[in-house]
Amino acid sequence: MGKVRVAAIGVSMDGFAAGPDQSLENPLGVRGPELFSWFFPTKTFNDMHGSGGGTTGLDDQFAQRSFKNVGSWILGRNMFGPVRGPWPDESWKGWWGANPPYHVPTFVLTHHARAPLEMEGGTRFIFVTDGIQSALRQAQQAAGDKDVRIGGGASTIRQYLKAGLVDEMHLALMPVLMGKGENLFSGLNLHELGFKCVERVPTEQATHVVLKK
Amino acid sequence: MGKVRVAAIGVSMDGFAAGPDQSLENPLGVRGPELFSWFFPTKTFNDMHGSGGGTTGLDDQFAQRSFKNVGSWILGRNMFGPVRGPWPDESWKGWWGANPPYHVPTFVLTHHARAPLEMEGGTRFIFVTDGIQSALRQAQQAAGDKDVRIGGGASTIRQYLKAGLVDEMHLALMPVLMGKGENLFSGLNLHELGFKCVERVPTEQATHVVLKK
Repeated sequence: MGKVRVAAIGVSMDGFAAGPDQSLENPLGVRGPELFSWFFPTKTFNDMHGSGGGTTGLDDQFAQRSFKNVGSWILGRNMFGPVRGPWPDESWKGWWGANPPYHVPTFVLTHHARAPLEMEGGTRFIFVTDGIQSALRQAQQAAGDKDVRIGGGASTIRQYLKAGLVDEMHLALMPVLMGKGENLFSGLNLHELGFKCVERVPTEQATHVVLKK
Repeated sequence: MGKVRVAAIGVSMDGFAAGPDQSLENPLGVRGPELFSWFFPTKTFNDMHGSGGGTTGLDDQFAQRSFKNVGSWILGRNMFGPVRGPWPDESWKGWWGANPPYHVPTFVLTHHARAPLEMEGGTRFIFVTDGIQSALRQAQQAAGDKDVRIGGGASTIRQYLKAGLVDEMHLALMPVLMGKGENLFSGLNLHELGFKCVERVPTEQATHVVLKK
């Protein structure tokens, strides 16, 4: 069985992994994109979005690593979209258009049942209503020998961390003060959960850290 | 008038500027010294403690800067010592021995009056019982054209930040997970307070950031 991984999460100095007031216009919350200014210029990001070009340095190496050997994803409902409460219809199919950047089975945590969605490029969104443990079991089965990547958002990551279900986490620590938004660390004691920093790579944009148990 | 500065504060990835359970044995809280592992090897620190030697690279440059042009200090009561409540006697004279590393007037915030303490090397501890604004006024008067340095701990720094009284802050962001202790950011919105990162210097030990309004 592969690992359960969190990767490529931009975090502000004050601990926020997304800005406040997520909406259709601000999928990452207000000022959220500042947490990903290390990622957007990379070749990996530009390849995903078909624009070509991009940087190939250390930031890109971390971006690449984040997608390597991923057999399935788990996303929180808010990472899938801005719709809250029961699904009004089937029209919302994620932020990413017809061909999302996952290309593997992708489990979406929600309290509201919905039929699976088959997208272009191999992404299949499966909606899981019976909790994080069930989503992980399904994701691990789908991933086989490969890793399960917990995509986010912060609340979903915190839930998996708290339950002791995450093996490895790559964060990109950004010189940004968010002030409010989704805090990655609140209510968590990662030291007691057994995590420590096993790798630290500062670049011009970010300080990349890999945390493992 | 000089600036009001916070400097050389080690901060964990999860936002703690000191460990939990401060005591006579653990002045920086349990595991607190891990936040200062960038500072202890520097020439500046070794000069202060008379042991000689020490590194002279970027970490030392930030350590040096932190002491430059400082005309007075403000310390929270817990940074002055582990004694809580009314002073049982005059025996506690700080963590630092007969010759503390301040060498200027140093104002200690407390709810319990106490006569000033004249130490060797120019440090004079003055105990202020009427609040942070009063302490700052007295410290600025003592500093003249020089800067007032808010030494800590986290709670004292947070109070001055919240009141909008800090001009500049140097943090050393450390690849450490503290889990619990004194959080520097909790209850603060440094973005709304007008701070942004104006300088970022990663070293092997820390990512130094300077935040200004």
